[in-house]
Amino acid sequence: MEYRIEKDTMGEVKVPVNAYYGAQTQRSIENFKIAQDINKMPKEIIKAFAYLKKAAALTNVEAGVLPKEKSDLIGQVCDEILEGKLDDQFPLVVWQTGSGTQSNMNVNEVVAYRAHVIHGGQLTDKDKFIHPNDDVNKSQSSNDTFPTAMHIAAYKMLLEVTIPGIKKLRDTLAQKAEAFKHIVKIGRTHFMDATPLTLGQEISGYVSQLDHGLRAINNTLPHLSELALGGTAVGTGINTPKGYSENVAKNIAQLTGIPFITAENKFEALAAHDAIVEAHGALKTVAVSLMKIANDIRMLSSGPRAGIGEIHIPDNEPGSSIMPGKVNPTQCEALTMIAAQVMGNDVAISIGGATGHFELNVFKPVMIFNFLHSARLIGDGCVSFNDKCAEGIEPIEANIKKHVDNSLMLVTALNTKIGYYKAAEIAQKAHKEGTTLKEMAVKLGYVTPAEFDEWVVPSHMVGEIK
Amino acid sequence: MEYRIEKDTMGEVKVPVNAYYGAQTQRSIENFKIAQDINKMPKEIIKAFAYLKKAAALTNVEAGVLPKEKSDLIGQVCDEILEGKLDDQFPLVVWQTGSGTQSNMNVNEVVAYRAHVIHGGQLTDKDKFIHPNDDVNKSQSSNDTFPTAMHIAAYKMLLEVTIPGIKKLRDTLAQKAEAFKHIVKIGRTHFMDATPLTLGQEISGYVSQLDHGLRAINNTLPHLSELALGGTAVGTGINTPKGYSENVAKNIAQLTGIPFITAENKFEALAAHDAIVEAHGALKTVAVSLMKIANDIRMLSSGPRAGIGEIHIPDNEPGSSIMPGKVNPTQCEALTMIAAQVMGNDVAISIGGATGHFELNVFKPVMIFNFLHSARLIGDGCVSFNDKCAEGIEPIEANIKKHVDNSLMLVTALNTKIGYYKAAEIAQKAHKEGTTLKEMAVKLGYVTPAEFDEWVVPSHMVGEIK
Amino acid sequence: MEYRIEKDTMGEVKVPVNAYYGAQTQRSIENFKIAQDINKMPKEIIKAFAYLKKAAALTNVEAGVLPKEKSDLIGQVCDEILEGKLDDQFPLVVWQTGSGTQSNMNVNEVVAYRAHVIHGGQLTDKDKFIHPNDDVNKSQSSNDTFPTAMHIAAYKMLLEVTIPGIKKLRDTLAQKAEAFKHIVKIGRTHFMDATPLTLGQEISGYVSQLDHGLRAINNTLPHLSELALGGTAVGTGINTPKGYSENVAKNIAQLTGIPFITAENKFEALAAHDAIVEAHGALKTVAVSLMKIANDIRMLSSGPRAGIGEIHIPDNEPGSSIMPGKVNPTQCEALTMIAAQVMGNDVAISIGGATGHFELNVFKPVMIFNFLHSARLIGDGCVSFNDKCAEGIEPIEANIKKHVDNSLMLVTALNTKIGYYKAAEIAQKAHKEGTTLKEMAVKLGYVTPAEFDEWVVPSHMVGEIK
Amino acid sequence: MEYRIEKDTMGEVKVPVNAYYGAQTQRSIENFKIAQDINKMPKEIIKAFAYLKKAAALTNVEAGVLPKEKSDLIGQVCDEILEGKLDDQFPLVVWQTGSGTQSNMNVNEVVAYRAHVIHGGQLTDKDKFIHPNDDVNKSQSSNDTFPTAMHIAAYKMLLEVTIPGIKKLRDTLAQKAEAFKHIVKIGRTHFMDATPLTLGQEISGYVSQLDHGLRAINNTLPHLSELALGGTAVGTGINTPKGYSENVAKNIAQLTGIPFITAENKFEALAAHDAIVEAHGALKTVAVSLMKIANDIRMLSSGPRAGIGEIHIPDNEPGSSIMPGKVNPTQCEALTMIAAQVMGNDVAISIGGATGHFELNVFKPVMIFNFLHSARLIGDGCVSFNDKCAEGIEPIEANIKKHVDNSLMLVTALNTKIGYYKAAEIAQKAHKEGTTLKEMAVKLGYVTPAEFDEWVVPSHMVGEIK
Repeated sequence: MEYRIEKDTMGEVKVPVNAYYGAQTQRSIENFKIAQDINKMPKEIIKAFAYLKKAAALTNVEAGVLPKEKSDLIGQVCDEILEGKLDDQFPLVVWQTGSGTQSNMNVNEVVAYRAHVIHGGQLTDKDKFIHPNDDVNKSQSSNDTFPTAMHIAAYKMLLEVTIPGIKKLRDTLAQKAEAFKHIVKIGRTHFMDATPLTLGQEISGYVSQLDHGLRAINNTLPHLSELALGGTAVGTGINTPKGYSENVAKNIAQLTGIPFITAENKFEALAAHDAIVEAHGALKTVAVSLMKIANDIRMLSSGPRAGIGEIHIPDNEPGSSIMPGKVNPTQCEALTMIAAQVMGNDVAISIGGATGHFELNVFKPVMIFNFLHSARLIGDGCVSFNDKCAEGIEPIEANIKKHVDNSLMLVTALNTKIGYYKAAEIAQKAHKEGTTLKEMAVKLGYVTPAEFDEWVVPSHMVGEIK
Repeated sequence: MEYRIEKDTMGEVKVPVNAYYGAQTQRSIENFKIAQDINKMPKEIIKAFAYLKKAAALTNVEAGVLPKEKSDLIGQVCDEILEGKLDDQFPLVVWQTGSGTQSNMNVNEVVAYRAHVIHGGQLTDKDKFIHPNDDVNKSQSSNDTFPTAMHIAAYKMLLEVTIPGIKKLRDTLAQKAEAFKHIVKIGRTHFMDATPLTLGQEISGYVSQLDHGLRAINNTLPHLSELALGGTAVGTGINTPKGYSENVAKNIAQLTGIPFITAENKFEALAAHDAIVEAHGALKTVAVSLMKIANDIRMLSSGPRAGIGEIHIPDNEPGSSIMPGKVNPTQCEALTMIAAQVMGNDVAISIGGATGHFELNVFKPVMIFNFLHSARLIGDGCVSFNDKCAEGIEPIEANIKKHVDNSLMLVTALNTKIGYYKAAEIAQKAHKEGTTLKEMAVKLGYVTPAEFDEWVVPSHMVGEIK
Repeated sequence: MEYRIEKDTMGEVKVPVNAYYGAQTQRSIENFKIAQDINKMPKEIIKAFAYLKKAAALTNVEAGVLPKEKSDLIGQVCDEILEGKLDDQFPLVVWQTGSGTQSNMNVNEVVAYRAHVIHGGQLTDKDKFIHPNDDVNKSQSSNDTFPTAMHIAAYKMLLEVTIPGIKKLRDTLAQKAEAFKHIVKIGRTHFMDATPLTLGQEISGYVSQLDHGLRAINNTLPHLSELALGGTAVGTGINTPKGYSENVAKNIAQLTGIPFITAENKFEALAAHDAIVEAHGALKTVAVSLMKIANDIRMLSSGPRAGIGEIHIPDNEPGSSIMPGKVNPTQCEALTMIAAQVMGNDVAISIGGATGHFELNVFKPVMIFNFLHSARLIGDGCVSFNDKCAEGIEPIEANIKKHVDNSLMLVTALNTKIGYYKAAEIAQKAHKEGTTLKEMAVKLGYVTPAEFDEWVVPSHMVGEIK
Repeated sequence: MEYRIEKDTMGEVKVPVNAYYGAQTQRSIENFKIAQDINKMPKEIIKAFAYLKKAAALTNVEAGVLPKEKSDLIGQVCDEILEGKLDDQFPLVVWQTGSGTQSNMNVNEVVAYRAHVIHGGQLTDKDKFIHPNDDVNKSQSSNDTFPTAMHIAAYKMLLEVTIPGIKKLRDTLAQKAEAFKHIVKIGRTHFMDATPLTLGQEISGYVSQLDHGLRAINNTLPHLSELALGGTAVGTGINTPKGYSENVAKNIAQLTGIPFITAENKFEALAAHDAIVEAHGALKTVAVSLMKIANDIRMLSSGPRAGIGEIHIPDNEPGSSIMPGKVNPTQCEALTMIAAQVMGNDVAISIGGATGHFELNVFKPVMIFNFLHSARLIGDGCVSFNDKCAEGIEPIEANIKKHVDNSLMLVTALNTKIGYYKAAEIAQKAHKEGTTLKEMAVKLGYVTPAEFDEWVVPSHMVGEIK
């Protein structure tokens, strides 16, 4: 490969001749040969930096500390980054310095050097028209830019992927709950037969879980909307012009269309990432919900002949390389695996969040890596599960009817007529002797056949259907 | 020991002659010999049940399905439970049925039999005036009472112990932040010397963390305020009188003084405990904050002669059984151990929450056991840390001054004057040659002594102090 | 309450007049008002200290640094502790200093002052015959005694409770695997019908899990057998006589009957507790196994009429306060709750283990608290599950036969005769048209009835039964 | 894009015309649009499948159930996969069916169709010379191949990346421990000054941690060496020739050079992945060790002027985008972030392991994804930390000496001369009055200056140096 020489404050470094990045990026490539093929810094962070650098340049112009010409060039490169034109210029991995300094410098270098080229210069020029530190990074520090990029990327992912994905699944389930609201089926508690409910009611519980999950996520957005930018090195805002924090937050809000504000306390915003911990706690809650929902759906669809078999889900692909004709609840499996991953990611994030020291948390990259992973998986996973499974849920009415008709727990309806103890006696004896409830109830002389038929009516046992 | 015979639907059981509990409690004692000496069902759950049973009786009277005389007796025993008079009547452990049925029955039995005695009966009477199932448990199921008790206990603990504890610590730290707001000290990022801030600013970051943590907890209270009661067996409300759900929630709200409401969706309220998962996510976020804060404080107070030594914390006890005169940051240690515990509890709760099936989650006891543990530890831990440590934090001004005066990072103030690269050169050479910044800055010819003194003023580098 | 005055190096403290403990214990009670009613330092740690203090005294006598009279007195009190006679003298909680210094001093004080009384003195004597630090703690530090007590307590609990409990369950399951080895039943993968196996084979998988789990635990014992004692304050062994480390380990080994040795590297033994992390990793693996096993058993026993219903497990108690006659797999629920707890405890332990600094890990109490909790729960839980559930597992042969006879997956036997694709066609059409496999196989012309009967024989599909 | 038509048992599918894969792979691409850009099935699993498919073909030839010509072709394609020539033919993601069936079929299809092309056919031929199910997958099921691939990939990664990485770091630290074994420095417990030890002793504790960690990993290899292959669909080995399990394990062992054996119990090997849980428990233990070690090293190197500053670590890159001349312990940060990730991955793996049902665990992809991630991160992370940090550790002797000379904890040496209480008095008063220990000791009249100089010698307080 051909190289050119770039310099930073530590000296000269050989950089691929056509790379827009410079010395510090190259140092990081060489210093952190850790899972370089699989753990690149998430592209959402790079794009968040593009918003940030553009907004910072605009704000610096407004404050009179950067010429407009430079700001325009910076903004132009940022737009290129947002359009994905420079994707291959960000080779760094998550496992770098814990402040994300190297990714900040990677962006600073790419913006500066690409701007220099746009401005008519050559990458091999010793002096560039735009300086990575003094221009692109003006009024900034890694310590406030990286956490700002974390919040931008996290908030955007939640808004664009996670929340819409959950909502889509929620809406489909709500539709199913409505469609099946009169299909009376057996309830199951402790995996054991219980009193009846409707299939719609059962599914309405999932809808409620997701509604609460969405509310939980929304509750965490205000903390995520607080931006560290303007705190610079340690939170004091050294080297920023007056009003910078508020103004740069406004510019970011405008560029992203998200109601970002400047963090009231910059010391917290650099030294802790509780907003990420808190928001991921909500994602984990949703993961817990999804584990429950997907588990239920696969068990309800189990069989076809030796399982529960009360619902049918779509047959998407051959299920077995050895058992011909087998079909499996594969979407449930993908979704429950995702739930497990998110629950694991939560621990990584918590440990990272808890292990900051003094003025800076240096687990930034691992925290946002796991956060974006979870947010993406939940969003994509819900859409996949929705499109390929939930939308196709249909009741298998024959099995549903068979199960509810056989159930011994219908006896519960007799509690208020003959008392819990006699009702129990009926159920126990019917179970032991293999009779129907009615046969046994009458045989024991506790009710007449007519009373039984009047009192024990599954569809009367499911409460009011709204 | 002397016994009497009690019966349930499965037959006769020998029960200690003076125990107020009955057959089902006794069966559970014998069936679950698991950590019986250390893992009793939390007393907060028992008390929550007392509120619940009293409220249910009142509601049943209002609905005309229970005589007032019985309700009064039930209420009277519930009051005794709340006063702690019957503490020894609840011997069951967490490791029982996952629905908490046995603890529900334990309460039903104690209330019924104690009421029978108050009513003038004998424990050895075959028939009791009040029946555990048909009276005390009327219009209820374990499946809706236990989750209701979980929410009552959790919400009360948060209000009475957790939140006040955090607030107390927050207020002390806010006072310290104010008191020390002009003490300029060195900042530290990556454990390395950085630009200065004030001790008050540093501590204000902790205050902000706790403020956000309190907000995070508060955000989860609405979900916790939803009560499952009225859902009975599977969420349909079988065997409840009309309007029962809303009315019983009102009664519980009135008895506890907490704004409980009936859950909109009872299927969710029985089958999932996402409210507990969600609220504990907020507790875990606070634990993460506390770990950071306590870690900082012990490191800032480290020494006395070979550490950082910038603050002094109270000497509470001899710190070593072998090193005479040693004093340790023991409150920090208790608090960080608590943080670790809460982070572990979070995983237990999440797994429990994710593993419900169909109409019932049967990890109820383990979930609330861990929740109450965390809520208690955070509350007690913050108070202890506050009283025995935070209140006594004092700056050690000599060390603070020495550190800030020596710092090479003051050079950052020159960035906007001479550029990042020249500033770096000054710092690097001063470090290598062991000089002061000023000496090197002048020697390199980048600034005059007068300029240096004008531009590099630590107290000008800490931003605006509010 | 009446008090006497005790002193430590910080001054005078009022102590309950009859308490055997002294000033430092009292300080800890007052300084750590955290969950004092529920989180006492585990009694196993106190007993471990009794072995340790006795062994240390003996070793000090052998080394000529302690008079035999004092050692005898110390040993006598240690025996009283082991017999449980002084249980109420150890009031301290887990949430204290992270080195456990206060519990070490609690033991030192109780041993010294109780010995003084045995020796004829009074608790109110100003000078005691035995000194907590200079005699009982001689050649020791909290920093090496507490980790030694951790290893003693952990190892003993594993040997006496955990391993025997797992073995008991393993043996019962092995017996069931043998008893049911010819009962052909349907297999289930992805919750869907699959090719047959025998009930014995299915259960043999659980036995294999527990066998591997026992091996995993055993693999971690050598690290646990290493004792820190002799490292004293920071691992260098300051203030110990020559040969002390090896000799005291020998004495502890002899008193406990466990093959303890002195840790090769004392710095690791004080500053890290990887042995606890490692061993608990094995406990967590067993918890993972138990979750799987107990889940399977409750699903296999589900029903009685609308579930899988292939095995019967004992009816131990009424299952519902509202549904008469209901019986639930409550032992499975206790065991799966335990599994969740252990998985949570693992995280607390790992965080504690990871957060030691320099010469000392100060998460000792929280680590051993969680370790002993898990070890106890697994041991007790397995015994309870064994006695009240596993021993009573019986096949429900009618259901088993019905499921296997109906299964479409028997078609797999035709793969090697007619190819995977034709076999799949048979299964798919039989499923769609609701026929038996045989009917469809013949109808499609792929096999003759005689061939089908010869080739598709469930009992030939389960492999070789050993 | 141009397409061709491929078929599976569910019908026709359009596949990119030049893709070697077929219908089932294509279905998976379309059915699982989940994080397709970032979560590909790990390449190590694909390579493990290549070993497996080749070994299976060889074994099938030996058993007389596959023609040698077909086996040779299969082996040839497997070699191409191992050489990386077909990397772009494996587009599937982790978030697919939980059995990994689709990745197994991806391999089956690629091997079959590529073999067909090698054999002279065209991808567009309707019938291929080699059939994915009947030839490549002969005597196999996804249910036994995927877990076999998991063990092959996991074991190889441990042997080739993880263990060598840890060993490299361990050896460097051992060398440092030796080199610095006589440098007496202050000890620190609870972050507070303690008795002295040598820098070599301190580092030897890290070496011991890694030695124990390596042993912990090694202890888990026997369970990982057990292969599921031969169990086929549910563990019974249906459709395998006699002796197949043992023979195919032998062939895999020979091809990989790793001592693989057939699992004694195939039911466990399909239904549970405790071997992965157990082995990752050891990786997590190492992560815990690395967190401690890297934390210590960054704190010891903190400063340069306001920290501890007892060691110097290499300056690898500019540390700050705003603070000129700043250098940070970035390798420590990468390593501690890795530790946090591994601790999170452990939870994901445990949940996956615990949530298998009946004859199959369907969290296989998420389990091995996290396992390989951790194993890789630890291996790469240790090498990076070793090369760029540990090798360059050097003592800063001036600071070391200053700290030890000032220390009040040297007073511990007087315990055995004048007793703990008087020693404490000396230390406390020296601390309060700011004197040296010696001054205060003499002033209080407890020792003569000569005695002090004889008794209090730091280098005598560090024990025997081996």
